[in-house]
Amino acid sequence: MLKYKNMYNLIIIGGGPAGMTAGIYVARQKLDTLLITKDFGGQIGKKAVAIHNYPGFEEISGIELIQKFEKHLRKYKIDIERDEVKNVKKSGEKFIVTTKNKNKFESKAMIVASGSDPRPLEVPGEKEFIGKGVSYCATCDAPLFSGKRVAVIGGGNAGFETAVALGNFAKKIYIFEYDLDVKADKENQEMVEKLGKAEVFTDVALKEIKGNKFVDSIIYQNRKTKRNFALPIEGIFVEIGYQPATSFIKGLVDFNERDEIKVDFETCQTKTPGLFAAGDCNVGQFKQIITACGEGAKAALAVYQYLSR
Amino acid sequence: MLKYKNMYNLIIIGGGPAGMTAGIYVARQKLDTLLITKDFGGQIGKKAVAIHNYPGFEEISGIELIQKFEKHLRKYKIDIERDEVKNVKKSGEKFIVTTKNKNKFESKAMIVASGSDPRPLEVPGEKEFIGKGVSYCATCDAPLFSGKRVAVIGGGNAGFETAVALGNFAKKIYIFEYDLDVKADKENQEMVEKLGKAEVFTDVALKEIKGNKFVDSIIYQNRKTKRNFALPIEGIFVEIGYQPATSFIKGLVDFNERDEIKVDFETCQTKTPGLFAAGDCNVGQFKQIITACGEGAKAALAVYQYLSR
Repeated sequence: MLKYKNMYNLIIIGGGPAGMTAGIYVARQKLDTLLITKDFGGQIGKKAVAIHNYPGFEEISGIELIQKFEKHLRKYKIDIERDEVKNVKKSGEKFIVTTKNKNKFESKAMIVASGSDPRPLEVPGEKEFIGKGVSYCATCDAPLFSGKRVAVIGGGNAGFETAVALGNFAKKIYIFEYDLDVKADKENQEMVEKLGKAEVFTDVALKEIKGNKFVDSIIYQNRKTKRNFALPIEGIFVEIGYQPATSFIKGLVDFNERDEIKVDFETCQTKTPGLFAAGDCNVGQFKQIITACGEGAKAALAVYQYLSR
Repeated sequence: MLKYKNMYNLIIIGGGPAGMTAGIYVARQKLDTLLITKDFGGQIGKKAVAIHNYPGFEEISGIELIQKFEKHLRKYKIDIERDEVKNVKKSGEKFIVTTKNKNKFESKAMIVASGSDPRPLEVPGEKEFIGKGVSYCATCDAPLFSGKRVAVIGGGNAGFETAVALGNFAKKIYIFEYDLDVKADKENQEMVEKLGKAEVFTDVALKEIKGNKFVDSIIYQNRKTKRNFALPIEGIFVEIGYQPATSFIKGLVDFNERDEIKVDFETCQTKTPGLFAAGDCNVGQFKQIITACGEGAKAALAVYQYLSR
């Protein structure tokens, strides 16, 4: 049983900052729109620490910011379907969406704002120990590691922010960076230093995750000497970036080498007329809340123009 | 006498949403930066009505949003110079900036976020009556037209928002749109209708502004019949868009046909290495606060990467 009708002017796929911003914009235009998303907030909902770089809020938690976005969006009339898109096809002028719950929706235009998923380590033991020591979400799991020794894999901002979030719980924190230098900004580095219980390893590669019922150690390699070491730890937080959630749209868009969607600077339109894309699923080294929102707004206004023609 | 040193890693030109966002980002990175601007807020400071489409704030006045941005920016260490940039040159690896107050600053990288200025009508009487009935800023001047008859030139969102702002003061409001249809979104159109004292003319061209000491009438043409009409009014608000404030950077960047700066989607870099651009001065049909902020963040992170090489 469907709550909503099946044919729309616009379908927005994704409920992160890009999709929500696009939703606010088109709903203000009274455009007949369906937004399909599993949950609201995208990566922000899972952000470990407070957000300091969304202009207008000097400091705000990810969850609080998302609640403000959702309230802003729901002020306007927009249909929202909690579901996951499995497939998108184009038939004539129509886009046809099939979802995990076997719903089918159609639209004249589409904005893909499907974001990205955490990139896995792809080492032995990783899959086996998910939920048994291996985590991709410090906000969700940090409290489980009270008084324990944990490793954070990835020396970018996400890794350092995860270390800060773990600081209230873990006894000892190791940050592992594959390259010679960490990439976290100075502020995050200083915050981790202040914890007084974090240690940073650079030029190291994680080789294996070991354990019995739960993780009990990792094997890592010094990349210069090629020597392997074992380190006893009880938790691993993976923060080595994200991969775009774009496989369902293959064929209708051009990808770069990282499967990120190529779009036009001015309109965020893909190579398929009527198909737009915004946010973390797009080409871009700098994935930020504010950049995702900016692209969402561009795509929304371009959709309105496209449908008015 | 200069308050600040003359050589910086980065100079940001402009204190609107794009420049301020770039400032927040680089200051968080502790990048040695000078921001040069006449005033904070760019176009927002002059926005007539409340802002409803900056995600996170369901409704906020332009001035209030700018104050939040400025407070956010000043939380970090950044040099700010209240001045106007007259000229930018590149000498070797250095950018050299000359200002209206005859200051000279140098930097290794630059972000141009100089925004845009209101586009003039270019009809007889316009220049003569600036400040004597002709205005480009409803926020500044609407209260001066209490009980008066005013014309708003331009039927886009800016024109309709100006009409709404005038609604509290003016006795009668005429909106003039050159094209066959107005371009304001449905919400703005409904708000103007609710005023009960606005009248919309489409397919008309403004020909002349007349008056004695102050404006007393306008001459406009019905574009279909080519007939001219005189309308007695006491105020004219010009809202026919903006032109990018980019003349000072000519030669170092590529422009489109509207003198907007062409930049790379991913980094907002111009054709000159180390020279980035963000916001309303860039190519783009959709000039929004949130899109300007998004580009400011991209440019800032790309500058950091550029300088780290």
